[in-house]
Amino acid sequence: MKIETLRWAHNKLEMIDQRILPATFEYLSYDSAASVAEGIRSMVVRGAPAIGVAAAYGVALEALRLFASKPIPPLTPPLKEGEPIAIGISLAPFQGEGWGGDGFKTGMETGFTVLSQSRPTAVNLFWALQRMRKVWESVANQTPQQIATRLLDEAHEILAEDIRINRTMGAFGAELLADGARVLTHCNAGALATAGWGTALGVFRSAVEAGKKISVIADETRPFLQGARLTAWEMVQEKIPVTLITDNMSGYMMAQGEVDAVVVGTDRVAANGDVANKIGTYMVAVLARRHNIPFYVACPLSTIDMNIATGTDIPIEERSADEVKGFRDTHWAAEGVKIRNPSFDVTPAELVTGLITEKGIILQPDAKKLRKLFD
Amino acid sequence: MKIETLRWAHNKLEMIDQRILPATFEYLSYDSAASVAEGIRSMVVRGAPAIGVAAAYGVALEALRLFASKPIPPLTPPLKEGEPIAIGISLAPFQGEGWGGDGFKTGMETGFTVLSQSRPTAVNLFWALQRMRKVWESVANQTPQQIATRLLDEAHEILAEDIRINRTMGAFGAELLADGARVLTHCNAGALATAGWGTALGVFRSAVEAGKKISVIADETRPFLQGARLTAWEMVQEKIPVTLITDNMSGYMMAQGEVDAVVVGTDRVAANGDVANKIGTYMVAVLARRHNIPFYVACPLSTIDMNIATGTDIPIEERSADEVKGFRDTHWAAEGVKIRNPSFDVTPAELVTGLITEKGIILQPDAKKLRKLFD
Repeated sequence: MKIETLRWAHNKLEMIDQRILPATFEYLSYDSAASVAEGIRSMVVRGAPAIGVAAAYGVALEALRLFASKPIPPLTPPLKEGEPIAIGISLAPFQGEGWGGDGFKTGMETGFTVLSQSRPTAVNLFWALQRMRKVWESVANQTPQQIATRLLDEAHEILAEDIRINRTMGAFGAELLADGARVLTHCNAGALATAGWGTALGVFRSAVEAGKKISVIADETRPFLQGARLTAWEMVQEKIPVTLITDNMSGYMMAQGEVDAVVVGTDRVAANGDVANKIGTYMVAVLARRHNIPFYVACPLSTIDMNIATGTDIPIEERSADEVKGFRDTHWAAEGVKIRNPSFDVTPAELVTGLITEKGIILQPDAKKLRKLFD
Repeated sequence: MKIETLRWAHNKLEMIDQRILPATFEYLSYDSAASVAEGIRSMVVRGAPAIGVAAAYGVALEALRLFASKPIPPLTPPLKEGEPIAIGISLAPFQGEGWGGDGFKTGMETGFTVLSQSRPTAVNLFWALQRMRKVWESVANQTPQQIATRLLDEAHEILAEDIRINRTMGAFGAELLADGARVLTHCNAGALATAGWGTALGVFRSAVEAGKKISVIADETRPFLQGARLTAWEMVQEKIPVTLITDNMSGYMMAQGEVDAVVVGTDRVAANGDVANKIGTYMVAVLARRHNIPFYVACPLSTIDMNIATGTDIPIEERSADEVKGFRDTHWAAEGVKIRNPSFDVTPAELVTGLITEKGIILQPDAKKLRKLFD
């Protein structure tokens, strides 16, 4: 089954609503930077590479919207969870000013700002915005229509490139898995976290494509349950055997000798190889080391942030307490309890057996090896 | 607030229904071995010491029931989750046979069997049944009424003793916590897991009673959510500051320097000091070691099983897949996924900083130190 997490249709961006999977499979549509930013914030779309692609479309959509001079549409979809995004700036519709003039530029800058404030940890967001900004600057002298068309082409290219890169990473990563391997993964670094194929789950898909029989163990990944809802769903669709466990069971499974390797995705890798990923990844990595189980991180180059020296400097998003109180409308936590909800943690490079990139496997990553990768 | 997890009232055993806490606080009542066994299996009552106390009452209730020659009442409460207990034997009501004769004895043996099959991991269950059996044997020549009375007295004594022991352990354990300590706990080893006061949470209560300001970090403890529902609730009642996290966040909290100590309970300690406890305890212990955070286990002597050499031999219960698919009636897991649900794991003795017992603290427990404890 081909999963199109994001697609361009009817001159809009359509994204699978990942908050309601797997019970309901539904696309929501987006036609402005602000609505895409809200889709990212509320986790309609999630996963570092997918967020990057969404942000690129957000920029293109904003150019198209300003070009068409439409008023701002209401945010789609209506918010169900958490607080609305605090954009801190007013997003005035561009109306009546000359194209290519200050109004268009101001509108675009506002769009960039709103998108950049949607979520803090995944660097692909900033990487994609930077790439879109460069394109914008390169065509700044052209007509708004030409600018909008060029930005949309770039978003399409980022999407297509993401799938190509995942395929390349998948082929490299598949080499690391033995036939029959039982592989644990945390959260969802699948087709749903990317434009398609997936990073960690892309490795599994490529291994199966290469004729290997592997089976997957999926942590449920509280509080948003990406493992139980998304990874399990993707693997069931692919007919790859998958076993669901709660997050506190991976140590038991390793101690029982039921895990041969760990492959996860990442939201940002620092220049020294430290890996930020979904909360709980660090615990899995520490346990894997104790049991001498290889711990791999599937990581496109767009996820490596050479501007951040170590993981300590990676901003860690703290999300709404409501997510931890229960799930959706079901709340089970005792009234009056304080709640923490860090959404990511940092796994030090020393615990990483290898980074799987589109340029190959970087074993025991460190600052020197990562620098070389970008030379 | 005094929490009476189990109480004798109206000639029946009443137990707080822990499946529906904290939203609903309600007692269910039990009047036979079979109904108590079902209450244990379905986790109306849980926590090793509380299970032991419940089983003791189950034996006494069975004697009373046989003595009164009542028909078996329907199981209370109606099952909502999982499969009914597979008792594998028919529990025929004792009717019309001579007291003290074979009918009474057979009925009692059946009661012991049903209770012993309710849950496999917590040794307190078997410890309590053994203790009740000895009492029964010591009065076997007396009238059924005398036997029933004596067994009920013993159950009352086990309950009272449990609270006294928790208080003693609490005082010893409190010494281990510095003023201002931020202490992480997993699952619920509180008043709700015992006859009152608690083992791990008893240590926190005793520390506060001794004038120390401590704060608690509670793992939510999937899938049954004892941390979010029970530990958080108990600490809020006690006005002890408590912060709830998901199970995959404890590594992050430790890495941030926000955890000074870990205190957990246990369901069975092997003769070498290996500790079986709620699934996920092992992961917390491994992380605590990595961060040089002391890892303490509050453990009454009744939880130490000198007949089992190492943790490898402790039977680990696998519970219903339904528990992992979601919570209560809310299911979120993808259809078609396989599920594992081991309810406990084993933490090797080498990771245990100390056992907190009613005879004092056993630092770095091993076979020799535990043997000495029982000399």
